Amino acid sequence: MNDTVTATQQDLAALVEGARNGRVRAIARLISLVENNSPSLRPLMGLMAGDTGRAHVIGLTGSPGVGKSTTTTAIIGAYRARGMRVGVLAVDPSSPFSGGAVLGDRIRMQRHSLDEGVYIRSMASRGHLGGLSTAAPQALRVFDVAGFDVVLVETVGVGQSEVEIASTADTTLVLLAPGMGDGVQAAKAGILEIGDVFVVNKADRDGAQNLIREIRNMVALDSHGADDWKPPIVRTVASQEEGIEDLVDRIEAHREFQQAGGQWAARRLTRARSEIEALALATVRREFHTGGREGLEDLAAAVRDGRLDPYSAADQLLNRS
Amino acid sequence: MNDTVTATQQDLAALVEGARNGRVRAIARLISLVENNSPSLRPLMGLMAGDTGRAHVIGLTGSPGVGKSTTTTAIIGAYRARGMRVGVLAVDPSSPFSGGAVLGDRIRMQRHSLDEGVYIRSMASRGHLGGLSTAAPQALRVFDVAGFDVVLVETVGVGQSEVEIASTADTTLVLLAPGMGDGVQAAKAGILEIGDVFVVNKADRDGAQNLIREIRNMVALDSHGADDWKPPIVRTVASQEEGIEDLVDRIEAHREFQQAGGQWAARRLTRARSEIEALALATVRREFHTGGREGLEDLAAAVRDGRLDPYSAADQLLNRS
Repeated sequence: MNDTVTATQQDLAALVEGARNGRVRAIARLISLVENNSPSLRPLMGLMAGDTGRAHVIGLTGSPGVGKSTTTTAIIGAYRARGMRVGVLAVDPSSPFSGGAVLGDRIRMQRHSLDEGVYIRSMASRGHLGGLSTAAPQALRVFDVAGFDVVLVETVGVGQSEVEIASTADTTLVLLAPGMGDGVQAAKAGILEIGDVFVVNKADRDGAQNLIREIRNMVALDSHGADDWKPPIVRTVASQEEGIEDLVDRIEAHREFQQAGGQWAARRLTRARSEIEALALATVRREFHTGGREGLEDLAAAVRDGRLDPYSAADQLLNRS
Repeated sequence: MNDTVTATQQDLAALVEGARNGRVRAIARLISLVENNSPSLRPLMGLMAGDTGRAHVIGLTGSPGVGKSTTTTAIIGAYRARGMRVGVLAVDPSSPFSGGAVLGDRIRMQRHSLDEGVYIRSMASRGHLGGLSTAAPQALRVFDVAGFDVVLVETVGVGQSEVEIASTADTTLVLLAPGMGDGVQAAKAGILEIGDVFVVNKADRDGAQNLIREIRNMVALDSHGADDWKPPIVRTVASQEEGIEDLVDRIEAHREFQQAGGQWAARRLTRARSEIEALALATVRREFHTGGREGLEDLAAAVRDGRLDPYSAADQLLNRS
């Protein structure tokens, strides 16, 4: 797989230059290198390191059916009306739940497909060494290089790693909708912890008021200091673009709030730390399976057969380098 | 948290002896040590290493609402009628979706709560260093020590790690039900890859026949060699105990099939390998954050500010030991 996506150093420099000039094919090619975990990623990230951190990264998460794609489409329109260039990274999870849904939803965004100020890309991460936690930041660098003002990272909020991706954004939107049933109810407690802005979409439906009340109560239970950001709850009907201007105002307010305090830089530090850790752990894991560290099979057989406990096996795996 | 669950070597030996004699309090205490990632786990796993691998581990996974708890309760009854001792480990995911649902469902199993041949335990894994991938095998060792013939590991099939746990079982049951909507449809492709036995629960409802046909088509697309196990599809109405005897027969057939070939030992080798790897990676990760390896914060700041690329940062993190 990687053969087709490797590139020479000159190729890479040309691609990065192309992306800097906003050329869509160069951007697409670079994100494919990320998606396929190309050996070229290492020199590529070296070339792009200085371009990091320009775009406002907005995470969107929510269960299937809450209207993520419709909301994303509406947000794109609102930012474009403000003269900003918008990238969208739709993360197709590396969980067993990657399926047609996320990719299929992309089609609904085609309203923006002829707008040069918008680039929409879905990315799988199954093949990526460090999984989502390295693939997403690397893809974000490509958007940074290409000079997008805003990048929306959309994930299906059903797995831990996807929620983590959304939560390492500068601003995390949690989308909910009335009448989604049991699973969503169970999910809410966890998802509520990561939201900077809550969006109750399909707010014209029955149950919207109850849902808002429920979220308000849960947010109130979270300990917020006097100087902390208090997550607002925004009502939208994204399919009719209702509430979207208000939503974008709240997103911008969150950005300004964080930039005025230290939170903006702190959150980006966390994101960089997670990325470095994930890459380092991926290297260690690869060594377990290749010549670097031997004997994992023997150790596993000894543990399986009760001749060795797993802690001692892990120690031996690490010492034998 | 750990202070309250540490134990001396003598305490531990007494607990293990108690568990060997089937004493419920000792079993409960040992699983709490696992759950809380106690420092005592290392000596404990040393004491228990020889007891590994006795129980038939049956994984159950499925989305919320398919009837996992009802099915588990019915399976317990069927195995008890065959004179076997049954343990249940209900994994409360470390994902943000841990909520009341799994724990609440436990209450429905109280039918078996006075039966000494049954031990039911739910376990959270948020605090566990290696997460689910180490906590679940460690808890399984406790069930092994206590001499259970069968251990059902129940997970909510919404996150990658939970599905992984289910799939490292000796036999993995995938539960589905008609009329579960979009999310489940999207989920199916991934979940289908791990099933040894498919259970269509609520098979008296509309749509059951369509669901069975869909699963059959997907299973048929999977490449099965002439000597491979062909996952059966079992219809159940667990609330009325319909189809449960058939289900248990299929589970037993899968065990016999694997034990006759090399698959039984091979799958357990995989489980041991994952456990060792997860423990080793947890050690490495801990070193990133403590005195063992310094400079993660500085490296993260350099990456955030564009002075260093993440691969070089990861290299520096690993070399500085």
